[in-house]
Amino acid sequence: MPSAVSTQIQLVSRPQGWPTHEDFRTVQVTYGDLAPGEVRVENAFVSVDPYMRGRMNDARSYVAPYALGETMEGGAVGRVVASASDDVPVGSVVVHQLGWRDIAQADASAFRVVPDLPGVPLSLRLHILGMTGLTAYVGLTRIAEMKEGDTVFISGAAGAVGTAAGQIARLLGAKRVIGSAGSPEKVALLTEKYGYDAAVDYKVAPIRQQLADVAPEGIDVYFDNVGGDHLEAALDAFNDGGRAALCGAIATYNADGPVPGPDNLSNLVTRGLRLEGFTVGKHLSAAPEFQERMGGWLAEGRIAYDETIVDGIDHAVDAFLDMMRGANTGKMLVRI
Amino acid sequence: MPSAVSTQIQLVSRPQGWPTHEDFRTVQVTYGDLAPGEVRVENAFVSVDPYMRGRMNDARSYVAPYALGETMEGGAVGRVVASASDDVPVGSVVVHQLGWRDIAQADASAFRVVPDLPGVPLSLRLHILGMTGLTAYVGLTRIAEMKEGDTVFISGAAGAVGTAAGQIARLLGAKRVIGSAGSPEKVALLTEKYGYDAAVDYKVAPIRQQLADVAPEGIDVYFDNVGGDHLEAALDAFNDGGRAALCGAIATYNADGPVPGPDNLSNLVTRGLRLEGFTVGKHLSAAPEFQERMGGWLAEGRIAYDETIVDGIDHAVDAFLDMMRGANTGKMLVRI
Repeated sequence: MPSAVSTQIQLVSRPQGWPTHEDFRTVQVTYGDLAPGEVRVENAFVSVDPYMRGRMNDARSYVAPYALGETMEGGAVGRVVASASDDVPVGSVVVHQLGWRDIAQADASAFRVVPDLPGVPLSLRLHILGMTGLTAYVGLTRIAEMKEGDTVFISGAAGAVGTAAGQIARLLGAKRVIGSAGSPEKVALLTEKYGYDAAVDYKVAPIRQQLADVAPEGIDVYFDNVGGDHLEAALDAFNDGGRAALCGAIATYNADGPVPGPDNLSNLVTRGLRLEGFTVGKHLSAAPEFQERMGGWLAEGRIAYDETIVDGIDHAVDAFLDMMRGANTGKMLVRI
Repeated sequence: MPSAVSTQIQLVSRPQGWPTHEDFRTVQVTYGDLAPGEVRVENAFVSVDPYMRGRMNDARSYVAPYALGETMEGGAVGRVVASASDDVPVGSVVVHQLGWRDIAQADASAFRVVPDLPGVPLSLRLHILGMTGLTAYVGLTRIAEMKEGDTVFISGAAGAVGTAAGQIARLLGAKRVIGSAGSPEKVALLTEKYGYDAAVDYKVAPIRQQLADVAPEGIDVYFDNVGGDHLEAALDAFNDGGRAALCGAIATYNADGPVPGPDNLSNLVTRGLRLEGFTVGKHLSAAPEFQERMGGWLAEGRIAYDETIVDGIDHAVDAFLDMMRGANTGKMLVRI
């Protein structure tokens, strides 16, 4: 079997504030013959995600910090082109966490074979049918314990998790789904494509005031992709017994130091509110239930999604920075 | 039946920051003959509690603000001295919410008859066997979902709720119970009388640092009576999956404006933490279970308690202000 040259992106320094190209390098790795049990995968799509910024810091977190001088780990989907494992034959579609590289070669245990559903693009495995969709589903059903008739507010609503969460909330019987996003175009997309009942542009006026205007009867569930002023706004808008699922804090990822929390946490006591953070990795047991329901919704044509695609592994850093800046609509992906 | 003169304390203005005597007035109310269904109660003890400060503000809360010009509502226990209700005969011990007055007269539905247990002082109905104990029990079992083997941190640990919570946590199988209080005397009491494994004086050094020192293996449950820097300290000390029951925020009750929240809320996501506020009024269904368990623990002599008693309804405001300042040990009560 011929050797293969894999182009990979590695982290070489820990960013202070916003990452720059200087924090990364591109390397060529030559893979030789497969060892017994190994497979070689040509990636179709590689994922860039907000949580990656957290792993670039040398801080205690739910996953270890990225090692300097190693290839960036993260979700990817591809097809097996060579195999020395009976479990993962050539031609299989696989998802894995080997990240920012065009070709991956490793023990078969690093790859998970998924059904190659007709009419379902491989890229969906990295978002709406993958961890992104599962994150939205777990946050709503397991963390916020959303009930039929709830009014649901979602921040970062035009992002990959946000668009999934809005549609799932609707399909689970929300009375009203409200989203926030950072441009007029995204706001329009939320109501026109993703079925939000109302959407606001948080750059136009303080979100605290806008949320009060658009949710005069209060909110019951808050799905937080943003943190900061959005969490403060939600705490003000919550009805008694409100629940927040905190999934990310993109507003504070690039802060240089500690960021003050909301000034209205005392509402937790007076209104009996709950804030709960989560990472999807602790809730993988919900995956079969999720995949069955989401597979059904997709088959019925009830789920819309957007992808923003950047071509070429050499542009993974650009894709990541664009995503952090909010330049994407829906899931940001690198196509190989 | 003779009429009765009741001395009552009323709120006349909404305090800005710390309340003063000028915010209250003392009035004499003459009660005439009982209407059908009414009872007259001579109070034995009247309660002063931190939550009352919140009700003095004209702000949305879990209970309505106190009305100006009305007698301060709150917990009280007494004995029925006259009755026009078959349900509440003369001699009954009753608890009620008619508050800061020496004699109460109202429809029988305002009073709840409780057993007159031999050897159990009436005053316990206003704390360890009453709402205070129930608050500690609900916070640990229903909100923080404490499990055997958890390390539990309790702020305001020398207060009425705190001393109850520490002992209940121990009896429920905590691995380690840690408390904070505001004087060397209280800190000593926590370990010597209330069975805390460790206690710190938050006035000596930043609580964030002290908690890290005294809980090197982290905490699993935080029972928050304080808010502010204590919540920040707990968020730093939490192990993955930690749960906080937020019961009060005495540190911020008297603030003139909004108080910034903790600067480390992002730990909620990275460690999968939960913060949940509660008020005991929403969890009264736990009362029978609580009373049975606490009654048993009291009978076995496994529960210690302290009371700080101020004599005379005329000194209710002094008692309240002393309690807010932390001058009490254990439950602050006004004895009639």
